[in-house]
Amino acid sequence: MPEFFNVLAPNLALQTLLVRLSGPVAAETVPTRQAMGRVTAAALVAPEHLPAFPRSTMDGYAVRAHDTFGASESLPAYLEVVGEVAMGQAPNVTLADGQAAVAYTGGLLATGADAVVMIENTQTVDATSIEVFRPVAPGENVVQVGEDVQIGEVIVPAGALLRAQDIGGLMALGLTQVSVRQRPRVAIVSTGDEIVAPDRAPGPGQIRDINTYTIAALVEQAGGVPCPLGVIADDYESQRQAALAGLAQADMLVFSAGSSVSSRDMTVHVLNSLGTPGVLVHGLAHRPGKPTIVALIGEKPAFGLPGNPVSAMIVFRILVRPTLYALAGCTQMPQPRTVQARLTRNIPSVTGREDHVPVRLRHTDSEWQAEPVFGKSNLIYTLIRADGVVVVPMDKGGLYAAEEVPVQIYD
Amino acid sequence: MPEFFNVLAPNLALQTLLVRLSGPVAAETVPTRQAMGRVTAAALVAPEHLPAFPRSTMDGYAVRAHDTFGASESLPAYLEVVGEVAMGQAPNVTLADGQAAVAYTGGLLATGADAVVMIENTQTVDATSIEVFRPVAPGENVVQVGEDVQIGEVIVPAGALLRAQDIGGLMALGLTQVSVRQRPRVAIVSTGDEIVAPDRAPGPGQIRDINTYTIAALVEQAGGVPCPLGVIADDYESQRQAALAGLAQADMLVFSAGSSVSSRDMTVHVLNSLGTPGVLVHGLAHRPGKPTIVALIGEKPAFGLPGNPVSAMIVFRILVRPTLYALAGCTQMPQPRTVQARLTRNIPSVTGREDHVPVRLRHTDSEWQAEPVFGKSNLIYTLIRADGVVVVPMDKGGLYAAEEVPVQIYD
Repeated sequence: MPEFFNVLAPNLALQTLLVRLSGPVAAETVPTRQAMGRVTAAALVAPEHLPAFPRSTMDGYAVRAHDTFGASESLPAYLEVVGEVAMGQAPNVTLADGQAAVAYTGGLLATGADAVVMIENTQTVDATSIEVFRPVAPGENVVQVGEDVQIGEVIVPAGALLRAQDIGGLMALGLTQVSVRQRPRVAIVSTGDEIVAPDRAPGPGQIRDINTYTIAALVEQAGGVPCPLGVIADDYESQRQAALAGLAQADMLVFSAGSSVSSRDMTVHVLNSLGTPGVLVHGLAHRPGKPTIVALIGEKPAFGLPGNPVSAMIVFRILVRPTLYALAGCTQMPQPRTVQARLTRNIPSVTGREDHVPVRLRHTDSEWQAEPVFGKSNLIYTLIRADGVVVVPMDKGGLYAAEEVPVQIYD
Repeated sequence: MPEFFNVLAPNLALQTLLVRLSGPVAAETVPTRQAMGRVTAAALVAPEHLPAFPRSTMDGYAVRAHDTFGASESLPAYLEVVGEVAMGQAPNVTLADGQAAVAYTGGLLATGADAVVMIENTQTVDATSIEVFRPVAPGENVVQVGEDVQIGEVIVPAGALLRAQDIGGLMALGLTQVSVRQRPRVAIVSTGDEIVAPDRAPGPGQIRDINTYTIAALVEQAGGVPCPLGVIADDYESQRQAALAGLAQADMLVFSAGSSVSSRDMTVHVLNSLGTPGVLVHGLAHRPGKPTIVALIGEKPAFGLPGNPVSAMIVFRILVRPTLYALAGCTQMPQPRTVQARLTRNIPSVTGREDHVPVRLRHTDSEWQAEPVFGKSNLIYTLIRADGVVVVPMDKGGLYAAEEVPVQIYD
């Protein structure tokens, strides 16, 4: 049984692939309003100052600050109100000494003004004059030109995932189009003579295809475009043709390999037949997910995931997801949400192997508890009944009940 | 100045609205393969056993367990191999005493078999016989019918967000369609005489619309459908017409209110004119976000968010997002990702007010540090330069440098 000729730790297997990637996928220009979650292809630079004019941060009166110096409750400054600057309007009033103009939050300052007195610190005397009870310094309650962003400043670096606030910042500067990486396309092939499409009634010994759909959902969640190729029989030529079709239309290939040794060996042969360097890793020092294959075909990564759906999902998160973000040029992959929780039971493992164990979270009065969901042969429902996984690191022989551990949430 | 007649703590403001909601939006049936992230409208029940047949969990030989009792390295059991059960095939072989059949991982057991011997614990003697070195118990290395899920079992409760593993579990049972809540539709109205569309060059005193786009992005991220209605002038009748148009096509209305007091008062009057109970909350004990309006118009929630884009985004996460999940019938809203970090500086606040302060995260050798990004008047780029926010609770007058605090990640 010539299996697992090259069993690697998961992080080593990942690095073995990532260092050989030739670079991210091509860029494309998309409307900024649709760019949430996309990865910037280049650093974005402010084309103008923001704000472009000095804005009031308060409702009140634009003033010349020195007119208010020394003002107090007992000795207010008297100012003549000579107009107002309406929202969205250019100032049609210029302040001379001793004059003020009504200012609104976000509005332009009257010409000649250098500060704003909050309305709370004033009192109307008559239609054209006010008392000011507190002095303001020059620039007080004013946002200066370029105070938010200076022209030429890098506002978002290359390789960043665009967030809602970034979309807003681009719009504020008139950047209504943005250059982002294409969504990496991921061809998905489910193999196995026993697998039928989910809308078919399985015959004796047959089961419905799960992995095409879980992998497609995970690809979409990670910002990729799933290209499912359906269920392919366990024979060399069918699989090779499917793999070629996948490579022709996608940036990455994910095989959900058969469960048996012979089936996995066939996947290795198929992947090695497609191009160099071929299979880089066959076998992970990981449970579940030992029978995992990592390959590079020309510039395109390819994976043979275990047929077991729980293993396939867990290995996807360990290997495929980071590769997908790397293909998208993302410099900081979003980390999974984690919750600190106390283990309710021992988790046995062996040193030299990393285990990912599904757990259910339960909140007690004072803390989160993590209850391992042990299940024979990683039945799909072990992961459905779980909230996330606990990782038993390579160098540990297990984890003890009552240990506090981080739980990676699977949502 | 009759503002903030009803300043409430954020969680109280939210509850004031949520207890008055009449229920989730309507359900719709969608293909399961597109249901990732959708909310189940009813509990889902297994229509059949999974697996539907006893499956081998190993490559090896299906046997009658009692034939292996007592087998050892020194005294192996000899079994006659009478056939194999190919993957996806019904068994065409029935075992008599002393007989075995080749079994594959995931395949059906031969008729009469009750256990599987791993191939590693056997040795081939000749073309039709093997030695077995270890006994197996009945049921060993076999997944029994219904061991994953029993027919009639609730597999996913109502109000659950469907994850990749849930999609897989439904497909495994042939549930290729699923009843989920519609995506709540959210009408978005940006108001302000100074606001222009982002593709226009702002004149003096004008700024580009930010909030329509940040709010739309946040709505999509929370599973809703944004319905942007554009920029509406700061006059009562225009805003009322926009609000009516929004309510006619959406399940929720979000106004990005003007920044000035008079503009906010107008939003209150508009919302109160549309139906009962009208405005429930005017003013949050929160920074930023004090000038927030929460209303209910018939059965539809409506919000007046502050015009300031940073405040609008922060209040969206505090109030609008949970309301959106409630409308979608989701019983457990996904929590934001948090990172424990040590504050690098004091954060001043006042008791009786909750503050959300943007911070930048920096990883040192040993820990995460959170550097507050203080910015005058919450410039949009304070949030772009930040990784998330630190919450100063109502009952605290501030946080101290070197305190360890959770940072909510804004991604």
